[in-house]
Amino acid sequence: MSVLIVGSTALDSIKTPRAENPRLLGGSASHAAVAASFFSPVQLVGVVGGDFPRRYLALYKRRRIDLEALQILPGKTFHWSGEYESNMNHRRTLLTELGVFETFTPTLPKSHQAARYVLLANIATDPWCRQRRISAAEFRPLHVLDQMQRPKFVAADTMDLWLNIALPELLKLLKRLDAFVLNDSEAHQLTKEENVFAALKKIHKLGPKYVIIKKGSHGSILSGPRGSFICPAYPLRKVVDPTGAGDSFVGGMMGYLATAKGSVEDNIRRAMIYGSVVASFCCEGFGLTRTTKINRSHINQRAKELEKLTRF
Amino acid sequence: MSVLIVGSTALDSIKTPRAENPRLLGGSASHAAVAASFFSPVQLVGVVGGDFPRRYLALYKRRRIDLEALQILPGKTFHWSGEYESNMNHRRTLLTELGVFETFTPTLPKSHQAARYVLLANIATDPWCRQRRISAAEFRPLHVLDQMQRPKFVAADTMDLWLNIALPELLKLLKRLDAFVLNDSEAHQLTKEENVFAALKKIHKLGPKYVIIKKGSHGSILSGPRGSFICPAYPLRKVVDPTGAGDSFVGGMMGYLATAKGSVEDNIRRAMIYGSVVASFCCEGFGLTRTTKINRSHINQRAKELEKLTRF
Repeated sequence: MSVLIVGSTALDSIKTPRAENPRLLGGSASHAAVAASFFSPVQLVGVVGGDFPRRYLALYKRRRIDLEALQILPGKTFHWSGEYESNMNHRRTLLTELGVFETFTPTLPKSHQAARYVLLANIATDPWCRQRRISAAEFRPLHVLDQMQRPKFVAADTMDLWLNIALPELLKLLKRLDAFVLNDSEAHQLTKEENVFAALKKIHKLGPKYVIIKKGSHGSILSGPRGSFICPAYPLRKVVDPTGAGDSFVGGMMGYLATAKGSVEDNIRRAMIYGSVVASFCCEGFGLTRTTKINRSHINQRAKELEKLTRF
Repeated sequence: MSVLIVGSTALDSIKTPRAENPRLLGGSASHAAVAASFFSPVQLVGVVGGDFPRRYLALYKRRRIDLEALQILPGKTFHWSGEYESNMNHRRTLLTELGVFETFTPTLPKSHQAARYVLLANIATDPWCRQRRISAAEFRPLHVLDQMQRPKFVAADTMDLWLNIALPELLKLLKRLDAFVLNDSEAHQLTKEENVFAALKKIHKLGPKYVIIKKGSHGSILSGPRGSFICPAYPLRKVVDPTGAGDSFVGGMMGYLATAKGSVEDNIRRAMIYGSVVASFCCEGFGLTRTTKINRSHINQRAKELEKLTRF
């Protein structure tokens, strides 16, 4: 089955202490869609401007990503620019030009409304709407869900901003999710709990059956009906650019879930392992440069290694 | 086989946002020895003053810890006092009274010199010798090793201070170790590498066959001849007092190794899991209060749970 992925499609200009790369293909939906495409067909929902390079459209197509719901509008593509510190753990935003993303309303064609696996990738980025409270109508994740016929598994990823500007809408959304994926600092912000396991328990009470807390290079933790799962990050000696790693993780996970035989409960742990592996490739190059050079057998190889790395 | 453990035996006064506990049994050797005692006989090498409570001697004895090399000298027992912040990740030292520990020279009785498993637990604490360079003769870990006949497996734990005041001696020590255990910030300090896996590689070059980097609640990572192992921390919803958790980890690991059948290479991963479990109990109470209330079946239970928590 295919995965419907809604999120940002952007141009990222990324600076690290060693290099600078302007206008890479980026955005949460781009990273998640490419990651998912290794496992299942993908329907991308997003918006770009007239300046969006044709080579990036070609890249999506090479990954056989369905672009029917990718709007190409007159105007500029969402452009984000950021700079990493030497340890790659902290970044600061240098520039955010929303362009056509500012007024983006994700409208699903008929063919997309029947999707069974839905990923609401991170859809807001940095300083943008920090300035104002958002209205319910503007809360795009709910707007997307309202168009779906009968999704089987809906996951939403990281939305730190919603915590600040749309908490009531976020709480509404949580009740409609099967899985909620967030990072440890967001979990702390949402629950006021420093302890990850205490936070997981509190987030379950807000609705989602599965809660996954991402901890970057420390891996991630799942809490679900069959208990918890400690998912390792694939060990990397060198991180070139971590932008999009979290999106790759959740994209890979959703792609694996959409085609795996058996129930979500049977497969979600292994799905996280595959997501973790795709995220590791993402970190090894700027933007999607490394991820777009791998194939399924590279992924399977690292998944096997992760199995060996955790056995005792 | 028994484990010889050299380190500090102290009284710890610990303050957290919720409670204050004066003069608990503490010190790296106390925590490591109690942890190891669940798996193997232990020979403790340390020093206490005339003020050392008899109930703490009784506690060691209840754990069947051999006290022949625990010197009881006129004077005061090493007393450390510290305060934790609300997230339990940061602590500050309020007071350090070295007492009889200041001039402690670990001298091994004949019966101890033949020990096959040796743990050099953290032997220096906080502001103490930061003020001066230490001489080779004063470097107690080497002094201990010089007395050993033919140890089979020597491990040393965390010695951030040596990095500052005795780097040449530490480098000498590293060449004589089988395993070096340190935390992530120390690994960074020693190697100037932010990346844990890059740091592991560099530390191997300094001598030890096994290098273990501890990451607190994120678990630990082993690098050895059979590759790496990602060892999870046991999930805790509440941490009461993390003092001694690292010592419990390495103590439990050494105790398990000393009695497990087969080679160190066969057993070290499972040994880390057991160490991780004992460390989790340590965190659930002040000082050793929780650790001294458990038995081997509690430990086995959590080790099984950890297995379940990491399988996919």
